[in-house]
Amino acid sequence: MATQGQVITCKAAVAWEANKPLVIEDVQVAPPQAGEVRIKILFTALCHTDAYTWSGKDPEGLFPCILGHEAAGIVESVGEGVTEVQPGDHVIPCYQAECRECKFCKSGKTNLCGKVRAATGVGVMMNDKKSRFSINGKPIYHFMGTSTFSQYTVVHDVSVAKVDPQAPLEKICLLGCGVPTGLGAVWNTAKVEAGSIVAVFGLGTVGLAVAEGAKAAGASRIIGVDIDSKKYDTAKNFGVTEFVNPKDHDKPIQQVLVDLTDGGVDYSFECIGNVSVMRAALECCHKGWGTSVIVGVAASGQEISTRPFQLVTGRVWKGTAFGGFKSRSQVPWLVDKYMKKEIKVDEYITHELTLGEINKAFDLMHEGGCLRCVLSMHE
Amino acid sequence: MATQGQVITCKAAVAWEANKPLVIEDVQVAPPQAGEVRIKILFTALCHTDAYTWSGKDPEGLFPCILGHEAAGIVESVGEGVTEVQPGDHVIPCYQAECRECKFCKSGKTNLCGKVRAATGVGVMMNDKKSRFSINGKPIYHFMGTSTFSQYTVVHDVSVAKVDPQAPLEKICLLGCGVPTGLGAVWNTAKVEAGSIVAVFGLGTVGLAVAEGAKAAGASRIIGVDIDSKKYDTAKNFGVTEFVNPKDHDKPIQQVLVDLTDGGVDYSFECIGNVSVMRAALECCHKGWGTSVIVGVAASGQEISTRPFQLVTGRVWKGTAFGGFKSRSQVPWLVDKYMKKEIKVDEYITHELTLGEINKAFDLMHEGGCLRCVLSMHE
Ligand SMILES: NC(=O)c1ccc[n+]([C@@H]2O[C@H](COP(=O)([O-])OP(=O)(O)OC[C@H]3O[C@@H](n4cnc5c(N)ncnc54)[C@H](O)[C@@H]3O)[C@@H](O)[C@H]2O)c1
Ligand SMILES: NC(=O)c1ccc[n+]([C@@H]2O[C@H](COP(=O)([O-])OP(=O)(O)OC[C@H]3O[C@@H](n4cnc5c(N)ncnc54)[C@H](O)[C@@H]3O)[C@@H](O)[C@H]2O)c1
Ligand SMILES: [Zn+2]
Ligand SMILES: [Zn+2]
Ligand SMILES: [Zn+2]
Ligand SMILES: [Zn+2]
Repeated sequence: MATQGQVITCKAAVAWEANKPLVIEDVQVAPPQAGEVRIKILFTALCHTDAYTWSGKDPEGLFPCILGHEAAGIVESVGEGVTEVQPGDHVIPCYQAECRECKFCKSGKTNLCGKVRAATGVGVMMNDKKSRFSINGKPIYHFMGTSTFSQYTVVHDVSVAKVDPQAPLEKICLLGCGVPTGLGAVWNTAKVEAGSIVAVFGLGTVGLAVAEGAKAAGASRIIGVDIDSKKYDTAKNFGVTEFVNPKDHDKPIQQVLVDLTDGGVDYSFECIGNVSVMRAALECCHKGWGTSVIVGVAASGQEISTRPFQLVTGRVWKGTAFGGFKSRSQVPWLVDKYMKKEIKVDEYITHELTLGEINKAFDLMHEGGCLRCVLSMHE
Repeated sequence: MATQGQVITCKAAVAWEANKPLVIEDVQVAPPQAGEVRIKILFTALCHTDAYTWSGKDPEGLFPCILGHEAAGIVESVGEGVTEVQPGDHVIPCYQAECRECKFCKSGKTNLCGKVRAATGVGVMMNDKKSRFSINGKPIYHFMGTSTFSQYTVVHDVSVAKVDPQAPLEKICLLGCGVPTGLGAVWNTAKVEAGSIVAVFGLGTVGLAVAEGAKAAGASRIIGVDIDSKKYDTAKNFGVTEFVNPKDHDKPIQQVLVDLTDGGVDYSFECIGNVSVMRAALECCHKGWGTSVIVGVAASGQEISTRPFQLVTGRVWKGTAFGGFKSRSQVPWLVDKYMKKEIKVDEYITHELTLGEINKAFDLMHEGGCLRCVLSMHE
């Protein structure tokens, strides 16, 4: 390939500073080093973690950087020692790596691989602790080990899921974050059984994917909770059977749900990132066995609390990252499920724009009608 | 039997008011009504829940009452419809009932039977919502559905575990609360696997039983944490392999444990009732899978907190009541295990007194050297 081993200059949306509009720049993307993969990103969606870091509220956010972590593309070239993918492979970059050899991967108990975290946490690559992105020699930080708001990106090989080349990249880019997070929260973290009563707090993409996962698991009731009543119509299509708007009640929402369900729900999921809702989600669980899973990401420094009696009387408090899915092993499986029409993806896409319109896409995120906005990366 | 159907007058330690010494009184104990069992208590131990309610800090505490919930005795008579025990049976009264027919019992997910809770929670019996204890016509409240600080007590039939008559009642009375709580926290609630690293916060009876349970489960390291270094020698006999005294360290105890264990423990147990220690116990758990079980009972109104990130990155927060054991079904099994020398009981008994010395026994509880003090009920 003509570009292999060369620096590629391409367009990327650069976050120069917190809370300032992203700027489309010509960025130099260095060739992949040992254990690295350079990917031509074709489609990327936006997720709240991008917005959170961009907002400056993330104390670990580094600027300037290239955000983005929910995307799909094609391998352009690979560095030394990379054997599992090759140029031309269709791939989804995964912010949650899977090396299959670290303490975490080998535990069989978690998807939180530790292999490249020391580098991705500080916006660089493992091999030389440097960035592959630069503008006229000035380095631009990576983000979450993915940086998909660029036409080309470089990621660690342990962070690349090779997927069915027949699958439409403009859809399956969503399988890089929000949809698997919701499905996996139900299937892997909570392990919801048939007949269960489930409450979902927050009916954005993640909450809807929870509802979808719960329906697939055979839940008997799926109670959607959102302060925006407009969400209910869409939510029905994802499996939500009842809707509760906390604003319609004087009682605390946990009490409303306990009353609705003769003692509480079997499983609850917080898909907002609000610490008081996390407490409500725990406390609406049934005594003896109710399990609450925190999916939403709260702002830095915020804390959850409850009376310990809630746990002593049998409730369980958990959380999930990327829905507990092992990225390289299971994202391809999710793509296959999508191809077999066993999971929805298209239905989460409410807007389609181009990379150049990325600031508009961020604005859309804050509008109630937006689930996922997919950007195509051509100019 | 001569006493059957009669009111029995016997000695009991009555808590007339919060925080005032218990008084040995002549108490009238009414015959058991339908679904009730009158038990001649032969031995009772003291537990922290007795001291907590007695102290007046328990907002649900009712006075005057007869405390006590860790005991063993012999059935004196049974009320109408009671089929599972009969006069002469050796039994352990269980504050955690097991009816086998309520939503909780049938769930297969919890030991928290709901059958008689409405009555036991307010110090009376289900049948007529009244107490069976009185002094010259003045009713004295029941406590935890057991009230074992009396030579005779009346309990619901769903709260009676019939045990091997060969087992020494002066020992197996401990199987009414503290020891099963610790063992069950490990075996039922956490389900500790062989090879696990375990931390136990608080090395009283409950914490030592956790250590014993963890050793039986094959834990590779059992780290005991206590502010009283004198606990360490005893703790070794119960399986503790390493000791940490938080007072010996400047760093927060969670950090000390994370450093000691290359990332954190697999399971931790809080056996104190201190909400800051509960937080430390969660936060010393290994990312990705570490599970913390709250066993200690905190004072009313106190709350636990942590950053939600602790859970999102895979830690699990749970609690346990009576170690998750189904009382009527499993207490007899624990007695059998004791008879086969598979679990310790004698080793937890550090003091033996009589009912008349009960106030001294409460004083002893606050001394470091005391694990369990067993009272014999003869005068
Ligand atoms: N744990 C993970 O791995 C992971 C992965 C992806 C996203 N997330 C997090 O999941 C959360 C949800 O993501 P999303 O894309 O679905 O977000 P979203 O903004 O599209 O949806 C949030 C929903 O919550 C509703 N809401 C807000 N406040 C509420 C309240 N007090 N009570 C009830 N409803 C309320 C909003 O109306 C909205 O419908 C975010 O915090 C995101 O960062 C976590
Ligand atoms: N969940 C249940 O079903 C259940 C049942 C029985 C008892 N309990 C509770 O379990 C707890 C323990 O009971 P026990 O009988 O073993 O009590 P105990 O008083 O004998 O033991 C507590 C131990 O904790 C140590 N300790 C105190 N503060 C500490 C600190 N900050 N850090 C480290 N160690 C500290 C003490 O030195 C002592 O050794 C109590 O809260 C009791 O109410 C719960
Ligand atoms: Zn995301
Ligand atoms: Zn790994
Ligand atoms: Zn007790
Ligand atoms: Zn029951």
